[in-house]
Amino acid sequence: MKIYCNKSELYRALNNAIQAVPSRSTSKILEGVLIETKEDEMIITGTDTFMVVESKLSAKCDGIADFVAPAALFANIIGKLPSEDVMMEYDSVKKVLSIQSGRYRSEVICFDSTEFPKVQMKEPQKSITLNKESVRKLIRKTAFSASADEINGILTGVLCEIGDGNFRMVAVDAFRMAIYNEPLEDSIDAFKVVIPAKQLNKMSKIISDDGDETIRMELVDEKAVFFFDGTKVTLNTMNGRYIDYKRIIKVDSTTEVRIQKDELIRSIDRASILTQKENNNMIKFDIQDDLLEISALDNQGNMNEKIEIIQKGEDLKIGFNSRYMMEILRSIDDEEVVLYMRDNVSPCIFRPLQGERYLYLALPIRIN
Amino acid sequence: MKIYCNKSELYRALNNAIQAVPSRSTSKILEGVLIETKEDEMIITGTDTFMVVESKLSAKCDGIADFVAPAALFANIIGKLPSEDVMMEYDSVKKVLSIQSGRYRSEVICFDSTEFPKVQMKEPQKSITLNKESVRKLIRKTAFSASADEINGILTGVLCEIGDGNFRMVAVDAFRMAIYNEPLEDSIDAFKVVIPAKQLNKMSKIISDDGDETIRMELVDEKAVFFFDGTKVTLNTMNGRYIDYKRIIKVDSTTEVRIQKDELIRSIDRASILTQKENNNMIKFDIQDDLLEISALDNQGNMNEKIEIIQKGEDLKIGFNSRYMMEILRSIDDEEVVLYMRDNVSPCIFRPLQGERYLYLALPIRIN
Repeated sequence: MKIYCNKSELYRALNNAIQAVPSRSTSKILEGVLIETKEDEMIITGTDTFMVVESKLSAKCDGIADFVAPAALFANIIGKLPSEDVMMEYDSVKKVLSIQSGRYRSEVICFDSTEFPKVQMKEPQKSITLNKESVRKLIRKTAFSASADEINGILTGVLCEIGDGNFRMVAVDAFRMAIYNEPLEDSIDAFKVVIPAKQLNKMSKIISDDGDETIRMELVDEKAVFFFDGTKVTLNTMNGRYIDYKRIIKVDSTTEVRIQKDELIRSIDRASILTQKENNNMIKFDIQDDLLEISALDNQGNMNEKIEIIQKGEDLKIGFNSRYMMEILRSIDDEEVVLYMRDNVSPCIFRPLQGERYLYLALPIRIN
Repeated sequence: MKIYCNKSELYRALNNAIQAVPSRSTSKILEGVLIETKEDEMIITGTDTFMVVESKLSAKCDGIADFVAPAALFANIIGKLPSEDVMMEYDSVKKVLSIQSGRYRSEVICFDSTEFPKVQMKEPQKSITLNKESVRKLIRKTAFSASADEINGILTGVLCEIGDGNFRMVAVDAFRMAIYNEPLEDSIDAFKVVIPAKQLNKMSKIISDDGDETIRMELVDEKAVFFFDGTKVTLNTMNGRYIDYKRIIKVDSTTEVRIQKDELIRSIDRASILTQKENNNMIKFDIQDDLLEISALDNQGNMNEKIEIIQKGEDLKIGFNSRYMMEILRSIDDEEVVLYMRDNVSPCIFRPLQGERYLYLALPIRIN
């Protein structure tokens, strides 16, 4: 059984599938990718059982075969082949895959496909078409705020919500929240689903800049399935009730600060040099007279710096974790941002100058 | 005591000095850099006691002071300052250094300079002027071959030898050797000195592309002192007799292989995917009919690839450590290289097509 294909296409498909492959597993078969051949295409599948990535490429195959190749080794070999033309041959008796390219020959020991976990899917209950770039943007701007600790259950997931003409993602952990809205072109029936942030992040890595402009999303059997660029990504959804995020964001602010985002980022970066992890990376804001003074202090020294702002309302002294502040500010594209605060224990809310595209929230750290 | 200087110049000098500063030391003072001010310059010194780097920069100082600032923190702050203008002030009573730049203010806790190790040097016994780029090239092309294991004593050093119109560096460990010659413009009295490879590598990192064209080298008190770009680097030399390298390189070759270097590098790179550390990263060369077949084998699979060569003499099967091969080939600039071999236990020698600028030697691995 021979397969002829293009090296770059094979490498791209392999690297997509590998996103779902655990680097270490108790089962050798999960460290592999499933290769399935049809007459004129090849499908490469990787999974850690939570996430399945199936990536297709054009190939001339003179037969049907399926086998599991060791993922990391296979990708490493393909990435370094001397020529764009690749000829592969699978020997199902010896379970050996031969790879030829130019004057290079290699044999790789493979596994039977029988033990590889394959998902049988029913018909989708819901199917929607989204802008591919929007999906990538939504993930990048929210998923970092989900809890990284499995103990927090559903908060390790991102709420994906369709309604009011928006596709919205929401992520919350104990200290901050991210909400981002992308307007939908077509009206779609409202729905909600929670998807693990870790898997969404992995998927966003394989959403390429070129290829399709849209992404199809299907909901089926408690799974969310995404189709784009010849790739199918199946993610588990999470059960349980997501937090009522709208209740959290109702803060009657008494201090509003309009600020140049990049200037604030650079200043917090300088402040972070003199903060200590044991002290929650604390930086202090002192807001008065249209100036925001940032200060930090640890046992090696201290710093302070003043930034011009447009201040509305009362003066305020408030402390934050510099890392959380930076993650929020770096995910904002606008040049300016408005911070809404009340006192040094109430959350600080980040919003754009106009509109409601995003909302970030950071809990302050109590200043001693 | 106030110091005015330029941020970029200060940052460059600091980063030079930091090359010699241990990232962790039992003594806090060694994790710092010594700052000395004169009327119109500032000298920054870092040392791990084996190596001393003193870097100068222009500065307007209204007094003389010396103190020790924590190196990593100080460099981190300077690198991120908002403006090119830096004003510093040292308070010798509080032992605090204030740093100002734009609207940024910082205070850093410093140490007394009294405990900082300062070397008093005698008059140099020898002083020579070398091409700066040549010195950097010599280090890059040889020092990697020195032994990394302190147990090997003088073999952790690089022999620097002046004679026959060349500045030569030689590095040897148990498995390979590197010799590189740079022609000297002026005739200089012959001498030999052995300098630790680790320190030479650190020094080569601070030899900049611009600045001076030459480097002055002085020998004094069993130290080698290098002057370039306003920086002075003092390195300990090593006592003891260096190996008689000329004796090793006398191999009567019976097989000569002329090869495209980059093609060989790419092929060994592909072979390395299927070699194992426990097996000394072994790759095999099979030389016959003007072809070099490279092969490798581990428990995941195997590979082989043929490269066209110009062969003189007998056919040969010989094994090598792929890592050592790569390090040697990557330090060669020529497009083609000639390998001289005798049998599968005698060393393989790498030489240019013409001339004697370099000689590398690799011991084969016995093929089972």
